[in-house]
Amino acid sequence: MKVSPNYNLRQAILDSGIQIDSSCGGVGTCGRCLAKVNEGKVKTKKTGLISPGKKEKGYVLSCLSKVQSDLIIEIPRQRKARAKIVDGVFAEIKSKKYSDINRSEISSVQIKPWIKKEAITVEKPSLSYGTSDLYRLKKSVREKLGIENCIVPIHLTRKLPRVLREKNWEITVTADKENATLIDIQPGKTGSKCYGLALDIGTTSLVIYLVDLGNGKIISTESEYNPQIKFGEDIINRIIYAGKKGGLEKLREIVVDSINNMIWKLLFNSRIDADNIVSLMVAGNSTMMHLFYGVSPRYIREEPYVTVANKFPGSTASEVNIKHIKNAYVYSIQGVASYLGGDITSGILATDMFKKEELTLFMDLGTNGELVVGNSEWMMGASCSAGPAFEGGGVKCGIRAVDGAIEKVSIDQRTYKCQVEVIGGGKPAGICGSGLIDVIGEMYLKGVIDRKGKFNQEIGNKYLKCEDKICHYVLVNGRDSANRRDIYISEVDIDNLIRAKAAIYAGIKTLLEEVDLNVDDLEKIYIAGGLGRHLYVKNAIVIGMLPDVEVKKYFFLGNTSVTGAYLSLLSEDKYKQSSDIADHITYIELSVNMKFMDRYVAGLFLPYTDMKDFPSVEESLYSPDKKIKSRFK
Amino acid sequence: MKVSPNYNLRQAILDSGIQIDSSCGGVGTCGRCLAKVNEGKVKTKKTGLISPGKKEKGYVLSCLSKVQSDLIIEIPRQRKARAKIVDGVFAEIKSKKYSDINRSEISSVQIKPWIKKEAITVEKPSLSYGTSDLYRLKKSVREKLGIENCIVPIHLTRKLPRVLREKNWEITVTADKENATLIDIQPGKTGSKCYGLALDIGTTSLVIYLVDLGNGKIISTESEYNPQIKFGEDIINRIIYAGKKGGLEKLREIVVDSINNMIWKLLFNSRIDADNIVSLMVAGNSTMMHLFYGVSPRYIREEPYVTVANKFPGSTASEVNIKHIKNAYVYSIQGVASYLGGDITSGILATDMFKKEELTLFMDLGTNGELVVGNSEWMMGASCSAGPAFEGGGVKCGIRAVDGAIEKVSIDQRTYKCQVEVIGGGKPAGICGSGLIDVIGEMYLKGVIDRKGKFNQEIGNKYLKCEDKICHYVLVNGRDSANRRDIYISEVDIDNLIRAKAAIYAGIKTLLEEVDLNVDDLEKIYIAGGLGRHLYVKNAIVIGMLPDVEVKKYFFLGNTSVTGAYLSLLSEDKYKQSSDIADHITYIELSVNMKFMDRYVAGLFLPYTDMKDFPSVEESLYSPDKKIKSRFK
Ligand code: FES
Ligand code: FES
Repeated sequence: MKVSPNYNLRQAILDSGIQIDSSCGGVGTCGRCLAKVNEGKVKTKKTGLISPGKKEKGYVLSCLSKVQSDLIIEIPRQRKARAKIVDGVFAEIKSKKYSDINRSEISSVQIKPWIKKEAITVEKPSLSYGTSDLYRLKKSVREKLGIENCIVPIHLTRKLPRVLREKNWEITVTADKENATLIDIQPGKTGSKCYGLALDIGTTSLVIYLVDLGNGKIISTESEYNPQIKFGEDIINRIIYAGKKGGLEKLREIVVDSINNMIWKLLFNSRIDADNIVSLMVAGNSTMMHLFYGVSPRYIREEPYVTVANKFPGSTASEVNIKHIKNAYVYSIQGVASYLGGDITSGILATDMFKKEELTLFMDLGTNGELVVGNSEWMMGASCSAGPAFEGGGVKCGIRAVDGAIEKVSIDQRTYKCQVEVIGGGKPAGICGSGLIDVIGEMYLKGVIDRKGKFNQEIGNKYLKCEDKICHYVLVNGRDSANRRDIYISEVDIDNLIRAKAAIYAGIKTLLEEVDLNVDDLEKIYIAGGLGRHLYVKNAIVIGMLPDVEVKKYFFLGNTSVTGAYLSLLSEDKYKQSSDIADHITYIELSVNMKFMDRYVAGLFLPYTDMKDFPSVEESLYSPDKKIKSRFK
Repeated sequence: MKVSPNYNLRQAILDSGIQIDSSCGGVGTCGRCLAKVNEGKVKTKKTGLISPGKKEKGYVLSCLSKVQSDLIIEIPRQRKARAKIVDGVFAEIKSKKYSDINRSEISSVQIKPWIKKEAITVEKPSLSYGTSDLYRLKKSVREKLGIENCIVPIHLTRKLPRVLREKNWEITVTADKENATLIDIQPGKTGSKCYGLALDIGTTSLVIYLVDLGNGKIISTESEYNPQIKFGEDIINRIIYAGKKGGLEKLREIVVDSINNMIWKLLFNSRIDADNIVSLMVAGNSTMMHLFYGVSPRYIREEPYVTVANKFPGSTASEVNIKHIKNAYVYSIQGVASYLGGDITSGILATDMFKKEELTLFMDLGTNGELVVGNSEWMMGASCSAGPAFEGGGVKCGIRAVDGAIEKVSIDQRTYKCQVEVIGGGKPAGICGSGLIDVIGEMYLKGVIDRKGKFNQEIGNKYLKCEDKICHYVLVNGRDSANRRDIYISEVDIDNLIRAKAAIYAGIKTLLEEVDLNVDDLEKIYIAGGLGRHLYVKNAIVIGMLPDVEVKKYFFLGNTSVTGAYLSLLSEDKYKQSSDIADHITYIELSVNMKFMDRYVAGLFLPYTDMKDFPSVEESLYSPDKKIKSRFK
């Protein structure tokens, strides 16, 4: 194939139809897009992600390389794509030791697509019954699909006369009932197969499902890191970047490019006719939605923290620069407020908590902890900024939950040596959020740190290294780590993590107190989002992040944002419910709430200032005088 | 200024902001776009429209010339643009000898624009009242403009946060009430001035008004020939051309180019900010509308003669390739049937016949005679193909009603010499429709031809030239004509004209008979369209084209199509009425109507087979025994 000089090598590979792993979306951070240059020249950026040995053999990261001459390229066998980011109710999930997706808690859906594809016969005109083609089409659409006075866009009007006459007035129409708009017309009976895409735009990752709208089957899924990460790990940094000259457009472009790329892959793999893809349902937090639509998120960050829109208007694919699927309409799930977006609405929709009497707490744990508590009668929501600690930010050895991340830690009570479990099974490179929660919990339980998060210097912990009174606890010795450096945790790291967990628990407490309830009143706790996937809930309770209630009340739901989008795609009722949900959640602004501040300060101890809040933790604490049988009764 | 090589010279002149006459729209047939090349090279096509003398001096038709090098160009002083095509109720019309526009019969309008521009204040968000910018905008729009749940397109959502905050939550919104859509938002109070364009796309000519939507004033008008003429004089030939490969797109392109050009001139002359132009209302016959929207008109011409659409959906300017006025929405007036288009609906709207009890006949005379008869209770319409005779087609010396066309003829009873009046006052070049009606009428009244349209050879008419029994009557001798050739009329010409007039009268008779009425029942007869402008109604009765009723029942209304579009622009009620009118007209297909055929055959005599239909004509006929005092009592 031919490309222009300086063309991005990874793009060239993708263009040629060859699949290449690139879970970071081509920003040079995942190290997956390896290619071996056998002949020819590329210009490539420096990276620490290729070993010197491989470098010598001619390996480059294709996303960091530009074509300089004719090339012969060898692409290493691709690892089987792991569904690590992709999850949700229907995705293939391998059962994990910790927590599985609780499918029982995911809403079922009666398929009732509001995008319909149906064969209809339009009346033939005659001298005595003339009228226009359009009039007769609308009449048939009204009679057969029940859509009054549907909108027929001009590009369909243009092909109408030919389509009507090609197969003797028999045509297949695709219509959006919700907006009373025709999406496509085709001659004859083309079958009623039509497909939709459900997309979750997360701050960290993008997940997309290709769905058969007739039977609800998920045909294929794709996931990638959100390439905006390059311009800011968290929401606040993205908003700041968007405020720079050209920043908003840049952020919009790269995320839309990634989405287009994922759509292209879905089409390529499924061999589905792009014309049969009729809708794209998008869920995401408010900032992600603003960026996707090219709308400035600036005021999300400035008091009084308002969005430009909680619900964006339906639009054609081309209006929002989505390629490949020109027939599709793009819809999005309504959000509640600046920091309680459509991803949460979508998540609530994915559960049935808004239909049940049980008092339920829904939480999505990521950079922000988003919380909704309520039942079929009322719902109240809030967001507490946990900071990036749980995503590996602000912690020296913290990394995201990718291959090489320590996701589980246990400490030997006698030797204080750590045992770690690593995502992907290789050598560890750092600790991810769930690993960090685990390590704090274990350290506290085993007496390595005290209630304030300070190291106990007197216990003879030989993994504790101190220099100038600054100590850190080595979890993995350099000789066992992927990058030959120690993996450790410092008091500063612990401090950051305690502040993060304090914010989340303070949010939960405050929200419940607003309605005179207590954590004991909670009947169910749903945990959604990336962190939930690897979380060991018992240790999250030990550190005082999650309420000390029976563990069986906890349910892990995975990526409920994409699940809600998926359900909305399949059912008119669900899509309407999503807006109802958003309308009915009362939003509490915590950043100016005095009670929240009190609870937060109280949470700067392990597990909490008042140990009465965490009775089970008190009992399971190690003390030399008392042997622990079971950590929890 | 710089242009690329081979750039069209006329376009270059227009681009530079210099006005150049080009009433044919740049197709090389009007000869108005003269330019003198003082220095440099152009490539120019041959044309008969420049005298050899001028050619020598370096004159070229700029529309037929391509730039080949640096040029110094001189453009002759432009004649003052004549409002020949432009007419309608508010245009400046010089009183003509024949007929003036009867303003009294044109509907008055209470200005109630459905496109509103208003300054509103949007609520400021606060910590206790957050919501989104969009929500608060919609709330204010609902409260101040009475539009429920208005649509805010994504491009406006994108600028919303800035616009709201720039002038402290005071903004000016432009909204389309009809479609509940916001057209524009601007910061602060920008004043409520907004403008619209009313456009009539005629088979022959394009007329456009620039209208102040606040007070209904017509600020400026433009008119041009429809450049599609080049690809077919009449509707049928255009439809055939549209069926050729690329033909439809070509026809759409050139007419839209002309319209864009006219809009550009209006903007340039009026110095109105293009952003303040919020709507374009289009009226035209069904074929013209199909071509404008890029929809195939093929089935208009094939039995059972149906349109693709009688009403095209509202669209943005860019969707239909209209330039310069990016904020504008494009609307069109609904038509009735293939041969009774939106131009007629618009015409009926321009009169108030659908509100009055008087039985009225509305006719638009052009290539097709379009007829509507009725009153406030019922309306019935038909179209009869008169052929191109009245537009100068199918008649040897026939030309369109342009400068040089004979528009009035009288014959000296004794000498049979013709006296002619010429449009523009110069030497005659041919005869236009009204001149042809006049000449037939005069010939018949003065005994030059008999009832069958054959020349009376026995009256000693020395202007009658015969060769092989084929005779023609010389109206203007070659030495007095513009092109030094005789201007004459032959029996074949007369035959064509008699068939044309027979079709129109047969249409009127048939339509009336359908409801058991007679021409005597008509209380008013409205004549719209180009032909009406120069028509001498008495002679039109003499030849049996128009019903023999008192002349005072006739009213000339000019271009009612653009007038109706103008009224619809100004008033929501009027625009709605236009669709009501279209819905309420019962269309009679004459091409398959036996009664119509009978009447048509009866009309192949002058004035009609049964002279009783034309009592006044019988009395005024010349016969040697009887002197005529007045032609009509
Ligand atoms: S490093 Fe190249 S795609 Fe991730
Ligand atoms: S001849 Fe050039 S514009 Fe008409």
